[in-house]
Amino acid sequence: MRYVDLNCDMGESFGAYRLGRDEEILSYVTSANIACGFHAGDAGTMRKTVKLALENGVAIGAHPGLQDLIGFGRRKMDISPQEAYDIAVYQIGALWGFVRSEGGTMQHVKAHGELYNMAAVNPGLAEAIAEAVYKVDPELILFGLANSELLKAGKKAGLRTASEVFSDRTYQDNGTLTPRRQPDAMITDDREAVKQVIRMVNEGKVLSRQNTDVLIQADTVCIHGDGAHALEFARMINESLRQAGITVQSIGKTISDNS
Amino acid sequence: MRYVDLNCDMGESFGAYRLGRDEEILSYVTSANIACGFHAGDAGTMRKTVKLALENGVAIGAHPGLQDLIGFGRRKMDISPQEAYDIAVYQIGALWGFVRSEGGTMQHVKAHGELYNMAAVNPGLAEAIAEAVYKVDPELILFGLANSELLKAGKKAGLRTASEVFSDRTYQDNGTLTPRRQPDAMITDDREAVKQVIRMVNEGKVLSRQNTDVLIQADTVCIHGDGAHALEFARMINESLRQAGITVQSIGKTISDNS
Amino acid sequence: MRYVDLNCDMGESFGAYRLGRDEEILSYVTSANIACGFHAGDAGTMRKTVKLALENGVAIGAHPGLQDLIGFGRRKMDISPQEAYDIAVYQIGALWGFVRSEGGTMQHVKAHGELYNMAAVNPGLAEAIAEAVYKVDPELILFGLANSELLKAGKKAGLRTASEVFSDRTYQDNGTLTPRRQPDAMITDDREAVKQVIRMVNEGKVLSRQNTDVLIQADTVCIHGDGAHALEFARMINESLRQAGITVQSIGKTISDNS
Amino acid sequence: MRYVDLNCDMGESFGAYRLGRDEEILSYVTSANIACGFHAGDAGTMRKTVKLALENGVAIGAHPGLQDLIGFGRRKMDISPQEAYDIAVYQIGALWGFVRSEGGTMQHVKAHGELYNMAAVNPGLAEAIAEAVYKVDPELILFGLANSELLKAGKKAGLRTASEVFSDRTYQDNGTLTPRRQPDAMITDDREAVKQVIRMVNEGKVLSRQNTDVLIQADTVCIHGDGAHALEFARMINESLRQAGITVQSIGKTISDNS
Repeated sequence: MRYVDLNCDMGESFGAYRLGRDEEILSYVTSANIACGFHAGDAGTMRKTVKLALENGVAIGAHPGLQDLIGFGRRKMDISPQEAYDIAVYQIGALWGFVRSEGGTMQHVKAHGELYNMAAVNPGLAEAIAEAVYKVDPELILFGLANSELLKAGKKAGLRTASEVFSDRTYQDNGTLTPRRQPDAMITDDREAVKQVIRMVNEGKVLSRQNTDVLIQADTVCIHGDGAHALEFARMINESLRQAGITVQSIGKTISDNS
Repeated sequence: MRYVDLNCDMGESFGAYRLGRDEEILSYVTSANIACGFHAGDAGTMRKTVKLALENGVAIGAHPGLQDLIGFGRRKMDISPQEAYDIAVYQIGALWGFVRSEGGTMQHVKAHGELYNMAAVNPGLAEAIAEAVYKVDPELILFGLANSELLKAGKKAGLRTASEVFSDRTYQDNGTLTPRRQPDAMITDDREAVKQVIRMVNEGKVLSRQNTDVLIQADTVCIHGDGAHALEFARMINESLRQAGITVQSIGKTISDNS
Repeated sequence: MRYVDLNCDMGESFGAYRLGRDEEILSYVTSANIACGFHAGDAGTMRKTVKLALENGVAIGAHPGLQDLIGFGRRKMDISPQEAYDIAVYQIGALWGFVRSEGGTMQHVKAHGELYNMAAVNPGLAEAIAEAVYKVDPELILFGLANSELLKAGKKAGLRTASEVFSDRTYQDNGTLTPRRQPDAMITDDREAVKQVIRMVNEGKVLSRQNTDVLIQADTVCIHGDGAHALEFARMINESLRQAGITVQSIGKTISDNS
Repeated sequence: MRYVDLNCDMGESFGAYRLGRDEEILSYVTSANIACGFHAGDAGTMRKTVKLALENGVAIGAHPGLQDLIGFGRRKMDISPQEAYDIAVYQIGALWGFVRSEGGTMQHVKAHGELYNMAAVNPGLAEAIAEAVYKVDPELILFGLANSELLKAGKKAGLRTASEVFSDRTYQDNGTLTPRRQPDAMITDDREAVKQVIRMVNEGKVLSRQNTDVLIQADTVCIHGDGAHALEFARMINESLRQAGITVQSIGKTISDNS
């Protein structure tokens, strides 16, 4: 039996500003990465999003980002490992407050945007984030890009990890994502995208853009939550995976079922 | 045997800005109210302050404030009870992250500045804060101004509470503080200040500025942490209380010893 | 000949967050109140909005608000007149930077949200804002609620002022707006709203909800910029005013034509 | 006759946080770089600092920084030239508001911290900042590190520029500063520091740490404003320069005297 988790960024509204279609997308995903107020989100949005996730039976994760609201956490910042550790602990804790007060549990942590990208390739930042997660709660599952430094650091720290893949991105023969600036970085055909994910889950392989088969572990798939097409795609990939005989469920359930 | 707790606001530095003499004052107080990043403090400062408190055996509390860094949380803001609840849960959670990752426990919550003042007189805000504390962790002790709405709300919510008194402020015959704009609001003579506290602890009474004895419960005394004199006064009141036969210890210890 | 200005809040997007339909609404209004980064807006949005206004021949005004991004400047804050002065000067200056660099001129200043509301009734805040505007540039036109303290303070400071009316709000017999919490505060019928404005412009009167005629000066009408209906209404009121023989043009043009 | 300007960062306090000894240092410098609220400073501090500078006859400059208050603008951020342009225009404008309302004029612009460092080596950022300054006011003088991209971009844009040198830093044989991580990057002996500056001003040369003479233009010297020693050093270098026959005056005065 094959299993896969579908995760989506959520709770990115801020004050009067609305972003994302959280209520609708929750029907199709199994893990929610909830923004914690640094790159997006605010206290009220966090409360509402935690509640929505619990009502929909979707597993909850903290989604800590760089302290750059105006840049949505997408601008590279030269932070130290200590600073990465500190902002991770702070944001995980803040979300924990809402998870606890709503009577739920936190399943995972997924870094956001440029923090995620930097931790994928920078061992110092990766170890700092892994340590933050472990010290706040060693039961938390650390999400990270497949084949990344962050996953390595998570395992080394003693955490359970989830290897994340992207349905709409192509891969290089070293197992990393083709950078966005390359012409063939994105997969725009939805059927191609779904086929790639199904093969990743069933065979643990992806065909690189250099036309070689690369090993990749697909524990969880990143789904976008913004825009009408995102919703449509979420519904479609969820159905296609089930039709392919793959169980779509949260990574936490898969891990606890298997242990 | 009489007991009293001495509490002090801490961790108010922010980025390059330094405030307070936390390391020194920790020798004289028994509970630390640690700023959580909204009115003061930041993630790195919170980590360091939690660690310092643990090293000094000082009990730790969250010190949530209004989201007004430029005003240091001292400007009244017309927030709703829901907003008060949300910012309280967020900030308590954020500090919990550091307490947990440093291997400690959180003893209490004390609202800061204008959030404290508003919750002292506004039942809606008081209940919102009490509910936030209870839902995050019903074992937390809620600090509030003696005879305030916040203490009432805390008890009603099922929380243990600590009635806070001020050594350097005079009281009115209804048990509330003399507003600062009144000429005799402050007690500037240190010996007078200490005497007032000792009587509060030993007799549960304070002489109002209308010259009547008023009932007051002194579980914890607020000590200031900024400036050379603050340090001097902290040392002095700590010693004077002990010399008067009063045990100076954290409210959490007193409660658990008595239960 | 009668003249009226139609003004609309603009440039309220922030980072990744989009708000308002600025490009479309600019076809129907004659003055743009551009957010300055405190309650909404950011540097990039300010540049783009100034440019758009210039391209559409719409007069530009600074729209300073309270330093409360999460509350969109709509929560009452207990700021001092000095603080009101300071945040007004800062924000007017910031927008001036973009107006100057795009080769335009600034016509007016309109305070936002709760800063506008507080300055309407609080003489100290009103005078502080009027002084800020005057000292930055005595040629700026100060917008204020009809019959408000802010207009009084503006005239006293030596500024030219624009008396602002609302099409979708009812008035009380003392010339002030019916508070929103009252059941009949809003005018929901567009034709009623337009008729009220036309009478204000032509006769200088409005029928209060107490059924008395009240004197009111309608130099400029506040138009909302968010949502499909807002756009529709802007188009409709613009047309209806012209059909009623009223010249719709910026207040700055009306003042300079008349002087 | 030789001339030199002494400049110092100022107005870095924020809300309840105090930084720098602005009042005292103003006696010894001729140009003040005033923080504009992004990396440090706030509206009230800007007003007070502008006023202080005017009272002391010290020329005023805007000191725009990265939008990173917690990092004091000292952390490298991957911003685009457009973003650099936008934050520069915004901050220069904001300070202009206070300069104008206090009846003064703005002399110069000096980028802060990592924005200064990035603009010294990155032509795209350098051109964006030069364009921002020029478009807000072509009369402003652009400060930049001696031999930097920023000075080149400023001249190309048609601005007058001031080549800045550091008294407490050593130089490399290509005319750039020795990076701080190198062991001999700092000059800790005050007499050495002063001697280096005097030679730069009088001969236009500095002895590099590779023991070669390098050409360098010393229009303005950066003086630190924080701490007791900074004050002492400011006084000492000011006196030493005068004793060496060098006129210490603002760069703006030197340029206008010579034109």
